Amino acid sequence: MSTFSNGDIFIGETLGTAVLVLMGGGVCAAVTLKRSKALNAGWLAITFGWGFAVMVGAYMVSTLSGAHLNPAVTLAIAVDSGDWSKVPLYLGSQLLGAVIGAVLVWLTYLGQFQANDEPTIGIFSTGPEIRNPVQNLITEIIGTMVLVLAILSQGLTKGLGLSGTGVLIVALTVVGIGLSLGGPTGYAINPVRDLGPRIVHSLLPIPKKGSSDWGYAWIPVVGPVVGGLLGGLLYHAAF
Amino acid sequence: MSTFSNGDIFIGETLGTAVLVLMGGGVCAAVTLKRSKALNAGWLAITFGWGFAVMVGAYMVSTLSGAHLNPAVTLAIAVDSGDWSKVPLYLGSQLLGAVIGAVLVWLTYLGQFQANDEPTIGIFSTGPEIRNPVQNLITEIIGTMVLVLAILSQGLTKGLGLSGTGVLIVALTVVGIGLSLGGPTGYAINPVRDLGPRIVHSLLPIPKKGSSDWGYAWIPVVGPVVGGLLGGLLYHAAF
Amino acid sequence: MSTFSNGDIFIGETLGTAVLVLMGGGVCAAVTLKRSKALNAGWLAITFGWGFAVMVGAYMVSTLSGAHLNPAVTLAIAVDSGDWSKVPLYLGSQLLGAVIGAVLVWLTYLGQFQANDEPTIGIFSTGPEIRNPVQNLITEIIGTMVLVLAILSQGLTKGLGLSGTGVLIVALTVVGIGLSLGGPTGYAINPVRDLGPRIVHSLLPIPKKGSSDWGYAWIPVVGPVVGGLLGGLLYHAAF
Amino acid sequence: MSTFSNGDIFIGETLGTAVLVLMGGGVCAAVTLKRSKALNAGWLAITFGWGFAVMVGAYMVSTLSGAHLNPAVTLAIAVDSGDWSKVPLYLGSQLLGAVIGAVLVWLTYLGQFQANDEPTIGIFSTGPEIRNPVQNLITEIIGTMVLVLAILSQGLTKGLGLSGTGVLIVALTVVGIGLSLGGPTGYAINPVRDLGPRIVHSLLPIPKKGSSDWGYAWIPVVGPVVGGLLGGLLYHAAF
Repeated sequence: MSTFSNGDIFIGETLGTAVLVLMGGGVCAAVTLKRSKALNAGWLAITFGWGFAVMVGAYMVSTLSGAHLNPAVTLAIAVDSGDWSKVPLYLGSQLLGAVIGAVLVWLTYLGQFQANDEPTIGIFSTGPEIRNPVQNLITEIIGTMVLVLAILSQGLTKGLGLSGTGVLIVALTVVGIGLSLGGPTGYAINPVRDLGPRIVHSLLPIPKKGSSDWGYAWIPVVGPVVGGLLGGLLYHAAF
Repeated sequence: MSTFSNGDIFIGETLGTAVLVLMGGGVCAAVTLKRSKALNAGWLAITFGWGFAVMVGAYMVSTLSGAHLNPAVTLAIAVDSGDWSKVPLYLGSQLLGAVIGAVLVWLTYLGQFQANDEPTIGIFSTGPEIRNPVQNLITEIIGTMVLVLAILSQGLTKGLGLSGTGVLIVALTVVGIGLSLGGPTGYAINPVRDLGPRIVHSLLPIPKKGSSDWGYAWIPVVGPVVGGLLGGLLYHAAF
Repeated sequence: MSTFSNGDIFIGETLGTAVLVLMGGGVCAAVTLKRSKALNAGWLAITFGWGFAVMVGAYMVSTLSGAHLNPAVTLAIAVDSGDWSKVPLYLGSQLLGAVIGAVLVWLTYLGQFQANDEPTIGIFSTGPEIRNPVQNLITEIIGTMVLVLAILSQGLTKGLGLSGTGVLIVALTVVGIGLSLGGPTGYAINPVRDLGPRIVHSLLPIPKKGSSDWGYAWIPVVGPVVGGLLGGLLYHAAF
Repeated sequence: MSTFSNGDIFIGETLGTAVLVLMGGGVCAAVTLKRSKALNAGWLAITFGWGFAVMVGAYMVSTLSGAHLNPAVTLAIAVDSGDWSKVPLYLGSQLLGAVIGAVLVWLTYLGQFQANDEPTIGIFSTGPEIRNPVQNLITEIIGTMVLVLAILSQGLTKGLGLSGTGVLIVALTVVGIGLSLGGPTGYAINPVRDLGPRIVHSLLPIPKKGSSDWGYAWIPVVGPVVGGLLGGLLYHAAF
């Protein structure tokens, strides 16, 4: 990670993660909120929407910061490379970007949110269908490991970084993880993608917005962090 | 923009925008009009249809004009490069292409339009779910900024222009913007894509075609123009 | 077209068109026939199925024959290049391949066809929602012109032929034509894709198979032929 | 196949097939099990899920083992090349990976499986809509031949192996085979993808899990093996 300047890392990870969360949260708003043209567009729309969110954010900033956009990816690369010096900068920028992205979702759907009368945390952050901490952690760990292994095996073995065809494959990998492994918990697989918007949800003035479900908040942070670390270790051992 | 001849720019932008609007308006007709095989195919069909419309138009003419096909893109490039000399030619050709494309939609679905008995402006131009000028402008500005940043960061940092893998990524970016940011206003994110077909709608002899909703027409023009300019400025500052 | 041997053209066009029609007819069977897992999977499934059918057929044989797989493409290239010497070989091989492909659809869905009790021509060949020869011809001509312009502008301006990224773009172009322009007639846009399976339908022993609708058969032949010729002329003039 | 070390082949085929079966079985679980966010997401979700499963598994390990992940592919390459020396290692690793992948599906959806009250073999392995051994074999043979021809014609004629754009095309080929040829039998087209999970299903403690349907188990093994061998022979003759 050391080939990018601190300023570029800050700009790249903040901008890229903001776009990722804007488009990812956006598709949840689009499919969920009343008086949206995409109401009830379904699970395929949500999973493709999140995949293209990753694609746009990653492609936009790949030359600035390498486009991690996810602490799980940053940690996996650190475990594999042994270089932890830039990790705090990456993680801080990612969290800031996620907060900005969630505010932009609210601005984009301002009219719909003002007319809201149902719980809205599901638009911002993930939640489980069956609430069981051990099971939910296992699901998030497995999903994150697949993501991290896919990114590492591509980026490092090809020397291509996240650009062109590689970004397409990562985007469709995220669609695939959503389709295949997202059923139980809604696939956070990224700590800041869940935590940033949850902070924003707890602060925004949305009518009848409901609980921010802070009791669940640690799982989509701890699960992806563990998955990222295990994925980095497995990659280091296998490749 | 100065590497293309005036004649090629005129042919490229007119042909490319005509194909874009033909296929983009076409999917709206396909999903909306009675006695169409695609009736009620849903929001995923509309968003993928518009994305592939951009892909086909852009790939077809990328070597002629650089395939802007959108005044927001032309303005963003002008803001970033400081070269405004070709802007009027680009914008005029794009508007002409959009008018031609909308007429071709009508020809393709002539039988369905002749049997029509419901308002049809939604097939040609965008409209809001909740009519609020400030909110609708914000939504269009955010969507257009994402589009413009995605295109600029790719085209200029890679030196590839709009061809091959880049066109695929732009196409899927448009799908993603539709899925994620299209819920409130139907994502014009392109002034001529909305204005050209609205002109055609007001002139065509379609039974029971309903209002052309000129009261809303300025928003999908002003929003994308502002979004394009802001996107160009942000790109110039960040990259 | 003269860089391929006659033997390779014959094998390539026959095999490629057979795969195209097998997978294209296959998705229509899958979505239409009772006791199929894909029953009622909808218009998106049909359009993506046809797009990937073109992708597989074209990529498989692009090094053997250039993968036209469609008389409209062959005619457009002949109009543009002025070389008509291989046209009969291409067209004959394509028709043979289309017949073989349609028989393979029947073999793949043999159990479903034996249990059939509804008209089946829609699985093999196209038909209009509103039967009007002039309108149906216009729709087929416009759709075919888009296809041919997309293929020619890519293949000739890039020197890449139909391989790699180009095949992906052609495949998604076919998906887009289906989504956007397929509503009125079911988008034959390829004479042999319609004629070959219609011949097979008229001969196969399918219970209650219904009419082969020969009265409509000339439209999905003449429309794409005219569209291919006009597309070739427009390409020659514009590029 | 002889350019990869035995150790890399073992790791690559085991890891890649495990990821393939985890994500492929995962999407079946996601769409089928109660209290999953993807419940009833439909046939498009299943087919795209399986295609992206192949994409992720193949791209992850292409530099380790060539990413066959399927005995039908291994056999087709052996028939074409005449080199059978590594076949047992490939097949054994693939079966081991498939078993591991199926266990990971169960872990990912543990809560949903514990709450299960319906037959579950359809999540793990394929089954026919109309049970007829000859018909079911024909369907599996045709589907596998298309897969094998698509992979061989790409890999060998281009010298690219399974990486980058090639992996995208193979993934979308698998989506296409599912959409077009999957209706009658659920398209195993891979012996270990069916056998490995069936073994796991027979051993796992899932409430009311129902029969493992061993009576059908030979068809999705024999069909793809025959299809792989015939595809290899046809490829050898045609190209």
